[in-house]
Amino acid sequence: MPRAVILLSGGLDSATTLAIAIEAGFDCYTLAFDYGQRHRAELVAAARVAAALGAHGHRQIEIPIGLFGGSALTDAAIDVPEAGGDGIPVTYVPARNTIFLSLALGWAEVLEAEVIFIGVNAIDYSGYPDCRPEFVAAFQALARLATKQAVEGAPVKIEAPLIELTKADIIRRGHALGVDYALTVSCYQADETGRACGRCDACRLRRAGFEAAGIADPTSYQAR
Amino acid sequence: MPRAVILLSGGLDSATTLAIAIEAGFDCYTLAFDYGQRHRAELVAAARVAAALGAHGHRQIEIPIGLFGGSALTDAAIDVPEAGGDGIPVTYVPARNTIFLSLALGWAEVLEAEVIFIGVNAIDYSGYPDCRPEFVAAFQALARLATKQAVEGAPVKIEAPLIELTKADIIRRGHALGVDYALTVSCYQADETGRACGRCDACRLRRAGFEAAGIADPTSYQAR
Repeated sequence: MPRAVILLSGGLDSATTLAIAIEAGFDCYTLAFDYGQRHRAELVAAARVAAALGAHGHRQIEIPIGLFGGSALTDAAIDVPEAGGDGIPVTYVPARNTIFLSLALGWAEVLEAEVIFIGVNAIDYSGYPDCRPEFVAAFQALARLATKQAVEGAPVKIEAPLIELTKADIIRRGHALGVDYALTVSCYQADETGRACGRCDACRLRRAGFEAAGIADPTSYQAR
Repeated sequence: MPRAVILLSGGLDSATTLAIAIEAGFDCYTLAFDYGQRHRAELVAAARVAAALGAHGHRQIEIPIGLFGGSALTDAAIDVPEAGGDGIPVTYVPARNTIFLSLALGWAEVLEAEVIFIGVNAIDYSGYPDCRPEFVAAFQALARLATKQAVEGAPVKIEAPLIELTKADIIRRGHALGVDYALTVSCYQADETGRACGRCDACRLRRAGFEAAGIADPTSYQAR
């Protein structure tokens, strides 16, 4: 079977993306990043989701981009906002998806994988520049030039199957594919057991998605 | 003064690139990667070169791409070749420059740097796909879309000032700028003290460069 690398954060979107890649017939290798994020529970969730959905291999690698600072997700001194605002929020992590895709590109080449799947989503997202279709297209153009595999005629494809879906569409799709969203963690400030705050951007988008999809929200929330 | 991030490997090319960036008037922040490379001495050299040339800040970050395998530079089971061959050599590290530039992009954004300098060189190089001008151009196109800094109208520029130079040109340029090449380590299998093997691709290109430039080679070689 052809192989694929799937960026797996432990959240709802990437779990759905993994289910889509498995259904499409790929042997899936999942990649999670410990980048100093405050929501460590998502790393536990990523391993759990990979096992539950049947990934062939799961790898967690540590990249100390938190050292650079500049984001509420990696800097304890910057609070996670609890109300939506205009523009790109402080939870933006500089160059995160570029870094994640570039590492996936390296692993994909060693695995001779045909596709890298990334669960970015340009509709119900947080305004991050590296979740837009034009960003994915630019990374695809780069991948056509960057590797030995590409020069030898087999560049890896970058697929972003959620890119045009709403959060409700994503949930319906994953639900139909049997994804157990109780295993996933989206919250930017989940506690160690993975319980969600219910108030950050990620929680609000997720909760609204379940409501719009008409599917019961299985998220475990922290007591207020 | 405007800021720049410089990818600094500890070798001859990146030391020259740093000297060029400093001469161009940038406050320079140098970035070296511990990626499990067998030539650990280059990391020591990078810190030494940064200090000698007057970088404003030097950072070494660890990224475990050696975990992926697939290269003679990160896998002790694959020998470093000692005679040139056709095609892309086994010292190629999957997606290395993509990964390095993506991390530089994150740091550049936090620093509000205007430029990222990379010392790639398409003439006297080893045939790596991610040293070609079209690769650098594709990364530039990606950087115009990938970050908050870019969306807000100030995308970082990617400069590769050595891209069209021969090794001899590079050495002449650096020599004129006062680079002490005795501080640098190019060898893929340098010993702990930084002494070069004299036989790998990197050594052969370097030695031929000094000869062609008519400048004495200050490299310290291992006894045979």
